[in-house]
Amino acid sequence: MQRFEVRPIGVVTRPGSDTTPGVYFDPDQESVIVIDPVWEPTLTGIEEYSHLIVMFWLDRAERAESAPELFQPDGRDDLPSVGLFATRTPRRPNPIGMACPRLIRRDGNRLLVRGIDAWDGTPVVDIKGYAPRDDIRADAQVPDWLIRLWKTHDEERVDRG
Amino acid sequence: MQRFEVRPIGVVTRPGSDTTPGVYFDPDQESVIVIDPVWEPTLTGIEEYSHLIVMFWLDRAERAESAPELFQPDGRDDLPSVGLFATRTPRRPNPIGMACPRLIRRDGNRLLVRGIDAWDGTPVVDIKGYAPRDDIRADAQVPDWLIRLWKTHDEERVDRG
Repeated sequence: MQRFEVRPIGVVTRPGSDTTPGVYFDPDQESVIVIDPVWEPTLTGIEEYSHLIVMFWLDRAERAESAPELFQPDGRDDLPSVGLFATRTPRRPNPIGMACPRLIRRDGNRLLVRGIDAWDGTPVVDIKGYAPRDDIRADAQVPDWLIRLWKTHDEERVDRG
Repeated sequence: MQRFEVRPIGVVTRPGSDTTPGVYFDPDQESVIVIDPVWEPTLTGIEEYSHLIVMFWLDRAERAESAPELFQPDGRDDLPSVGLFATRTPRRPNPIGMACPRLIRRDGNRLLVRGIDAWDGTPVVDIKGYAPRDDIRADAQVPDWLIRLWKTHDEERVDRG
């Protein structure tokens, strides 16, 4: 099948963020998406959206070159084994991440956002305004194991303060 | 900035769909996403999600190689001129589309879905389960012009029957 070339349009910056493996990553920290100045004019009007859809290339992920074994999310032996597409693992055939952060402010080519789980320096591939009509699926159901996993993550977050 | 290679994992099929330019495109028609058999095992568990996030490469779009002029959405002179990132135009630096269709059924490497606005033959780049916690932004606000545009689209849909 034909292949395609992704050309980053900018970068996620999180000055001072801790990127040590295993250290808790706070998705609510503010980040600045710095867009290449050549694209700045085409951001016009994006500041009227309260939230964005940001696609980014997970450049530090180990790309899945062939189908990996099924695995238990977070390595938990009380969860079922599933395939990568049933999870948000960065180890994917095309390691493209997506987040829906709040847009706090635009200053020219700089977008101040909150709620993007990307490391400092992550290349940004596309940005769209978040549109409830297209992007909210209010009746969406997820697997039971994911609900249990979220519960654990919440408890860990409380423990962390 | 470094560039990256996208390797499609499958294709959107819409047998019998009308792709004549200008003909109304029904996003609620059922489509089948056919995943390359090498990735079939890694779909395990995705059938427990009611909705998917599907990323696809808009291979028939004219890619934006440099910043285009601002434009009025749908060419309507009663709407403000905005930049491409404030719209869902397929003419983007990286023409990646996204949709959140309902997953009706999985048969092996075939995902029957409803609600994906991609032409027959569109290459699929990534699939994730739709997760309300990550993907719903219930308080999201959009520009006034977009609300007006949606109203017109609804009226046209009613007219079409």
